[in-house]
Amino acid sequence: MSKGSFADMNCPIAQTLEQVGEWWSLLILRNAFCGMSQFQDFQNHLGISTNILSQRLSQLVANGILTRQQAADDGRVVHYHLTAKGQSLYPILAAMTVWGEQWAPHPQGPRMTIVASDTGKAIRGVGIIAEDGRELRPDQLDTVAGPGADEKTHMLMRMRMETMK
Amino acid sequence: MSKGSFADMNCPIAQTLEQVGEWWSLLILRNAFCGMSQFQDFQNHLGISTNILSQRLSQLVANGILTRQQAADDGRVVHYHLTAKGQSLYPILAAMTVWGEQWAPHPQGPRMTIVASDTGKAIRGVGIIAEDGRELRPDQLDTVAGPGADEKTHMLMRMRMETMK
Repeated sequence: MSKGSFADMNCPIAQTLEQVGEWWSLLILRNAFCGMSQFQDFQNHLGISTNILSQRLSQLVANGILTRQQAADDGRVVHYHLTAKGQSLYPILAAMTVWGEQWAPHPQGPRMTIVASDTGKAIRGVGIIAEDGRELRPDQLDTVAGPGADEKTHMLMRMRMETMK
Repeated sequence: MSKGSFADMNCPIAQTLEQVGEWWSLLILRNAFCGMSQFQDFQNHLGISTNILSQRLSQLVANGILTRQQAADDGRVVHYHLTAKGQSLYPILAAMTVWGEQWAPHPQGPRMTIVASDTGKAIRGVGIIAEDGRELRPDQLDTVAGPGADEKTHMLMRMRMETMK
């Protein structure tokens, strides 16, 4: 059974999932954000099959999220690094870290905590920032259809607008 | 081929993916955030098979992300609604919306834009908020292991700390 593709879906969330939503991809990226760069290190840490890891890395490279570079001093050694597009995924991973610690906590306490480097204090969270810098709650936000929207997207946006009234 | 479970992984991101990272789950939740609540509406809008939709909704209910309620006036009508745990996923979906519009844009322009309700202006983005309300860049953040961390998590956190130096 094919799981199908979201490539033709008129939705930025679907497009994001199409590029990073495969099972394992976001955990590979989590490790890349921690500085991991070599195939064998990903495999050892994740316990993932060679085959799947190879597929996921190739897809992330093809999508411009990772680059694949041979080490300058040894062409047999390959490093994977996040591109600017990959680095931009940080808020998604941070939001998942915060949600997972809050709603699927470990009985002995936090597994990992994101802290401000200068104060060492845990962050308050991941928030929506207005154009003028204010943090906005979900009930202070609307989502509007733009020129790239198709009829299904317009339908969703109308539904959301009516629900929020 | 089984895709495997992340349930035993010592990581809040893996735990989040275990609950909402199945193919289709975040698109079902996107529609729930827009006010969609009935099985047939999800199926029509997403074009997903009855079987998969039913599995995903059941898993989201079992995980406490959606509730399943019979309509007061007609017991044959069932509505799915987001719980507080489900509502807390908003920053993840917002971050995916912003990333997808930026890095996988539609040629005719934005499909959907998150705006401040009061000003109508597009949000600046999804950001990491310090305990004192400042917005922090990724290079102003550390991630530290807590009492729930196992050796693999400690290893990642050490790697990240060394990489950030």
